[in-house]
Amino acid sequence: MDIMAVVDKMLAGDQAMLAKVITRIEREDGVVPEIMKRIYPRAGKAYTIGVTGPPGGGKSTLVDKLVSLLRQKDFTVGVVAVDPTSPFSGGAILGDRIRMQRHYLDEGVFIRSMASRGSFGGLAMATKDVVTALDAFGKDFVIVETVGVGQTELDIINRVDTTLVILIPGAGDAIQTMKAGLMEIADIFVVNKADQPGTENTINDLESMLSLHPAASGWDVPVISTQAHNNIGIEDLFQQIERHRTFLTERGQLNARREQRRKNDFLMAIQDRAKRQLQKHIERDGELSAIMERVARGELDPHSGAIEVFNTLGLLNE
Amino acid sequence: MDIMAVVDKMLAGDQAMLAKVITRIEREDGVVPEIMKRIYPRAGKAYTIGVTGPPGGGKSTLVDKLVSLLRQKDFTVGVVAVDPTSPFSGGAILGDRIRMQRHYLDEGVFIRSMASRGSFGGLAMATKDVVTALDAFGKDFVIVETVGVGQTELDIINRVDTTLVILIPGAGDAIQTMKAGLMEIADIFVVNKADQPGTENTINDLESMLSLHPAASGWDVPVISTQAHNNIGIEDLFQQIERHRTFLTERGQLNARREQRRKNDFLMAIQDRAKRQLQKHIERDGELSAIMERVARGELDPHSGAIEVFNTLGLLNE
Repeated sequence: MDIMAVVDKMLAGDQAMLAKVITRIEREDGVVPEIMKRIYPRAGKAYTIGVTGPPGGGKSTLVDKLVSLLRQKDFTVGVVAVDPTSPFSGGAILGDRIRMQRHYLDEGVFIRSMASRGSFGGLAMATKDVVTALDAFGKDFVIVETVGVGQTELDIINRVDTTLVILIPGAGDAIQTMKAGLMEIADIFVVNKADQPGTENTINDLESMLSLHPAASGWDVPVISTQAHNNIGIEDLFQQIERHRTFLTERGQLNARREQRRKNDFLMAIQDRAKRQLQKHIERDGELSAIMERVARGELDPHSGAIEVFNTLGLLNE
Repeated sequence: MDIMAVVDKMLAGDQAMLAKVITRIEREDGVVPEIMKRIYPRAGKAYTIGVTGPPGGGKSTLVDKLVSLLRQKDFTVGVVAVDPTSPFSGGAILGDRIRMQRHYLDEGVFIRSMASRGSFGGLAMATKDVVTALDAFGKDFVIVETVGVGQTELDIINRVDTTLVILIPGAGDAIQTMKAGLMEIADIFVVNKADQPGTENTINDLESMLSLHPAASGWDVPVISTQAHNNIGIEDLFQQIERHRTFLTERGQLNARREQRRKNDFLMAIQDRAKRQLQKHIERDGELSAIMERVARGELDPHSGAIEVFNTLGLLNE
């Protein structure tokens, strides 16, 4: 079937076609811009939630329980779980994603794991496009969960409306949270596994850090506790998400955030396109691959090599 | 002083000038390609060690002790600590880097923290260039330490000769290590804080995972235990690093790795240059910034916007 026919069936509500479209986006093949152009006018209605934090915090379980709650409230949900894996193997390690298969029989939920298959990004771009697809399909909420805590993951999480940072009691002190760059991206702090010792201390530490570094937006970042594995605190979490959504909407910040995001997406798309086109040229063009070989042998430094490529192609080089 | 005069003084052994050069590299200003061209022929002699792992593993202390050991053995050392911080604030959180200030009076050691100041990378590129500068300056060893565990950090760690992955007993099981993509990048596993309970279990878990997934290179990844805060196990760690170095050298893998790395650096430099040039054009050119505004308002999807930019500039667009 022609991919555009698949896209149209997806937009008509066929979830199997949604899966096919997402697979094409993940493969990052040449048809992606055309797909995105078709689905873009239908996107923009979903509310997006990011879930991040150090490994071992119980993020998957928390997302699982949040999905169940949203379904009870009759919202439809998309989940994108971003698993950074080795740049060498390219294999996704699904791990506890299996637990979420309980939702697979529920047509109101769509879950996809995304893995990074190499360096030089691409993952942030593909994740963004998958979120747009879930949004255009009509999901009320789209949850983006990241496993790693790094720059690419921050880029991904930056694209949501409300960001949850999940920590556990005592697991690394507040400084670790700051070091991982999580302090300023959190709209809501969640201390999960709150049946473990040290919960109160961790909450107090976070609250005193927040009183020293209040959010620039004027939003009062809440610190809540959950026990996702016991399904405790999830309703409270949902209420806080709704409270944040209301705050953003009433202040006009939701639109402002989304405009800024689109600009970033645009710059990312340009960068992505430039990289692909140039790589394609290097593969085909003897002169360009000769430059690469000189760089590989160490005869030419990478920056000078890049300048030579730009000169050879007659590109903007100033 | 002219920056090229600064570079020449640096290459003549002036460590204060090295600091100035690194600052220019960090600022990512336009002179970087010229700097790199000058220093590149002098680089390639340093042995590079990457140190990564989840937050809270005691990486900084371990690096501190490894630096002391290398200095006892009369090697000179450069350290680059990559702290991913918020894309919003741009401020580096130095945290326990302060501990390492003990080495500041030692001319044989040069330590620099690098922070990411925005999305769309740049950090991996700048880190690579700083490592090259330390190498060209003549440091025998250059240690790159990352705080986060994400794609950008993996890209950075990928650039070293020997990668140490630091874990602590019981802190997340083996699956977490695999999920974070650390399994296949480790040349040496270090279970630090080995005075804590669960050390034996963690070592056994790692060893059984390694027996199931042996390194493709034929290298037998060792799992060693350390107590960096008690200065225990550091000599053993050094011996394992030397054993890995010998392995790589004897098999010709050191050169093969470095060639591949230069190719990656080249592609990264091209991508970086393309992004900068295009952003500059967008800022200046009314037609291009009008395209960006349409994307920001949601009238045009980011991919289509990128294609329009390429068309407007007459760039390779196929």
